[in-house]
Amino acid sequence: MEYFPPALENLVEHFAKLPGIGRKTAQRLAFYVLSLPQEEADAFAQSITQAKTAIHCCPVCQNLTEGEGPCAVCASPKRNHGVICVVADPKDVVAMERSREYHGLYHVLHGVISPMNHVGPDDLHIKSLVERVAAGGVEEVIMATNPDTEGEATAMYLARLLRPFQVRVSRLAYGIPVGSHLEYADDATLMRALEGRQAM
Amino acid sequence: MEYFPPALENLVEHFAKLPGIGRKTAQRLAFYVLSLPQEEADAFAQSITQAKTAIHCCPVCQNLTEGEGPCAVCASPKRNHGVICVVADPKDVVAMERSREYHGLYHVLHGVISPMNHVGPDDLHIKSLVERVAAGGVEEVIMATNPDTEGEATAMYLARLLRPFQVRVSRLAYGIPVGSHLEYADDATLMRALEGRQAM
Repeated sequence: MEYFPPALENLVEHFAKLPGIGRKTAQRLAFYVLSLPQEEADAFAQSITQAKTAIHCCPVCQNLTEGEGPCAVCASPKRNHGVICVVADPKDVVAMERSREYHGLYHVLHGVISPMNHVGPDDLHIKSLVERVAAGGVEEVIMATNPDTEGEATAMYLARLLRPFQVRVSRLAYGIPVGSHLEYADDATLMRALEGRQAM
Repeated sequence: MEYFPPALENLVEHFAKLPGIGRKTAQRLAFYVLSLPQEEADAFAQSITQAKTAIHCCPVCQNLTEGEGPCAVCASPKRNHGVICVVADPKDVVAMERSREYHGLYHVLHGVISPMNHVGPDDLHIKSLVERVAAGGVEEVIMATNPDTEGEATAMYLARLLRPFQVRVSRLAYGIPVGSHLEYADDATLMRALEGRQAM
């Protein structure tokens, strides 16, 4: 028997459901929450409920946003509305924004095509992407799904789907990550880096 | 700029305050919470508030408990009320209970004496322990603080404090952990194991 009062056990179980959090860590987190001042614990609880209610998908790009209408990126007149970067996940938008080099719009698929996990094209926000491109005004669609099998397959599928619209479809470059060591690069990456070599 | 809606950023910050959770993990947890069904997210939020309000310290042993009066251990007629095991933390009670070998009561100090962290004897539940012993009926007090410098010092301090009451004060045995390898045991542990060797 694990000797915990029910309310504490309940809290531990909720923490243990989080990804990457085992039972031992969950216990540590639960004890930490108990040690918080009442108002901080309440604020934590509130942040969960509030995030769940306030945050929804942008009707245009499907990225997470708060408030009415399209998200800040889609609504901004400073962004280039002729370029759409297609990513699998809202986290990837954050990664792209961090580079400060991309000034176009986004489209978040919320997943990749994955027959193994029973995720087909209809489970993703693909239809709305095609509609955006079909509506005109888009010059280029940049595929920025992850460079793994499923991300690749999804990008290929979308490229074929967008072919009738005479829009330029591109893919993020493969290569050696900046700051890494050649000796640790895998064969596939090295091959792609060689293929994509550029004049200097 | 990290491109997060404020409510999501707020949730990420709350997760990032938890011990051992960095900003990256906090983001992953926050996205997971967003992906939960509304009722599960609400249940999670509620478990935090509820644990905070429902759980308090047992007036006798200071262990965490729910509801009115003393905790289940203190109230149980099946436990040996003549023995008190002194631990630093409620987590340690769980560890002791797991052994299923201890049938006495507990006393939770909620910390150890630690001048480095400005924790003195008055910051711990030491006075209530002395009162319990002074009230009589206690035959033995077992020190089960952690076997580190601060745990040791706290146990020594308490042993001296309890000397006037003619109660037996003991300490958990030091030695090689069961199932471990001699070659990995540190010098101090081996020395203690040798000192505490028993006839067989």
